[in-house]
Amino acid sequence: MTPQALLLAFELVGVFAFALDGALTAMRWAHLDLFGVVALGVVTAVGGGILRDVLLGELPPATFRTWYYLATATAGALLAFWAHRLLARMTRPILVFDTIGLSLFSVTGAQVAYEAGIGAGQAILLGGLTGVGGGTLRDVLVRRVPSILTGGLYAVPALLGAAIAVTGPLLGLSVTVAALAGGLWCAVLRTGGVIRGWHAPRATLESPRALDE
Amino acid sequence: MTPQALLLAFELVGVFAFALDGALTAMRWAHLDLFGVVALGVVTAVGGGILRDVLLGELPPATFRTWYYLATATAGALLAFWAHRLLARMTRPILVFDTIGLSLFSVTGAQVAYEAGIGAGQAILLGGLTGVGGGTLRDVLVRRVPSILTGGLYAVPALLGAAIAVTGPLLGLSVTVAALAGGLWCAVLRTGGVIRGWHAPRATLESPRALDE
Amino acid sequence: MTPQALLLAFELVGVFAFALDGALTAMRWAHLDLFGVVALGVVTAVGGGILRDVLLGELPPATFRTWYYLATATAGALLAFWAHRLLARMTRPILVFDTIGLSLFSVTGAQVAYEAGIGAGQAILLGGLTGVGGGTLRDVLVRRVPSILTGGLYAVPALLGAAIAVTGPLLGLSVTVAALAGGLWCAVLRTGGVIRGWHAPRATLESPRALDE
Repeated sequence: MTPQALLLAFELVGVFAFALDGALTAMRWAHLDLFGVVALGVVTAVGGGILRDVLLGELPPATFRTWYYLATATAGALLAFWAHRLLARMTRPILVFDTIGLSLFSVTGAQVAYEAGIGAGQAILLGGLTGVGGGTLRDVLVRRVPSILTGGLYAVPALLGAAIAVTGPLLGLSVTVAALAGGLWCAVLRTGGVIRGWHAPRATLESPRALDE
Repeated sequence: MTPQALLLAFELVGVFAFALDGALTAMRWAHLDLFGVVALGVVTAVGGGILRDVLLGELPPATFRTWYYLATATAGALLAFWAHRLLARMTRPILVFDTIGLSLFSVTGAQVAYEAGIGAGQAILLGGLTGVGGGTLRDVLVRRVPSILTGGLYAVPALLGAAIAVTGPLLGLSVTVAALAGGLWCAVLRTGGVIRGWHAPRATLESPRALDE
Repeated sequence: MTPQALLLAFELVGVFAFALDGALTAMRWAHLDLFGVVALGVVTAVGGGILRDVLLGELPPATFRTWYYLATATAGALLAFWAHRLLARMTRPILVFDTIGLSLFSVTGAQVAYEAGIGAGQAILLGGLTGVGGGTLRDVLVRRVPSILTGGLYAVPALLGAAIAVTGPLLGLSVTVAALAGGLWCAVLRTGGVIRGWHAPRATLESPRALDE
């Protein structure tokens, strides 16, 4: 399997996982009908990649250049709709699919951005954005404060996974191994963060009147 | 009237209708002052077209290349502000203007995208996005769950209207007739959906604990 | 100091002010942890400039082309986190930093857009968008109705500041003087608007049933 084929495979698995995630969110949080479920699933699945391509200036985005992404996203959302009782038997299915999507998108987003010719630092950042973009759009649309702001460790695992995917090959790893290592590390950190309730220090402003209404 | 002139006329009527829609929403749902009303009207009116042009890579967007769009949007929002008591006598004015904007933008968005040289499938999708984009931005800004997710039939009529507008000319219809047919079909489907309460099947997850907090 | 260096200095001060603003908002309104505070600070700080560059088609955005912007934004957000008790002693710190960011970004955004070769009217509009963009993203992410819609005078000072920055040089002012005058005027108008409670006329629709659910 060439690195290009692997990258595409990773992307499509990420799209599928995010589509399940978005569709389950639609049924769980917003009681949407079938079309709403598919719409939220597709937006969650392709939002991060579109954001990356817009910022790279690679337009129209990959999502619109082939039918793979949209077909995979639609299939994932439909599957979530029809099999939702089955999926609900999983332990925290939204978390599981969100973590898979986050891990794969951070890694592939970073590699796509780096191959497009921008610097390593920017590629890492765009990888992180690819990972968190779809879920952030999903949360804004159903009116939740996005995971990127609240959810224990969310952007940090994405950025670390992206960093491994970009710097690994510079240090002699194969692109494939670097992608796997980055994705795995992102998934472990994210899952650990949720299960153990890891979070960074907080600072709450006690005197609201001192700030603005 | 050349097809180009008709396309522009359709776009400007769509801009005007969406500006009325956004401005009425601002007064109805968010109790905004004149500037807020104009701001929400303009965002609703030009948001879909800007989104389309960003994804097509046609930058700066048409909205910024001529003064027609912004002037029409501002005029529509101001009119809604001054004539709101009159407009409120209509039966469900927000629905009416939203349907007009949705229908015209889906059709013109799809034809603009197709003329820009992308594939028919992608042009249909971008047409649908042009139609639903402005209303989705409007709803996010005033903190409502967007119509694209909840509102009976919203994205589906937009996509079907766009499909007629793109495929009609391939089947021998004139561009003008295809645009009219697509827009009309979108409007009928959307209006029927709202009046009759049509919606697709729902699936609500009964056991919240099985999903994520 | 060359106009280019001054422009960059203004931009970085604006980034820093918006990062403080976004980070304080994160602690005040959403009780986020350190990573959430930094994320919201960075999005607030670089959102407006990214929006401007996307609409200009100058991709990847300036934010991703050098490390200055992201480093400044991160530093501002971290400072706000560690020094929040000190900052809270200021009178309405979020308003102060938001006004500084708004004024500087409107002016620099307009000059960057005008130098990119688009018309004066569009440059003024893009300047206003640069000014209000970051704060609007910030408010959407923490689920507040954005200042652009509610906040007394917000978009209007931004547009007037941008107009002075673009038209001043056409009338013979130096770029530097025009930028200072535009920024100052924006800040005065915004601050006066908040302190005095200036707002434009309102029109509330009294009969909700006449509109849509």
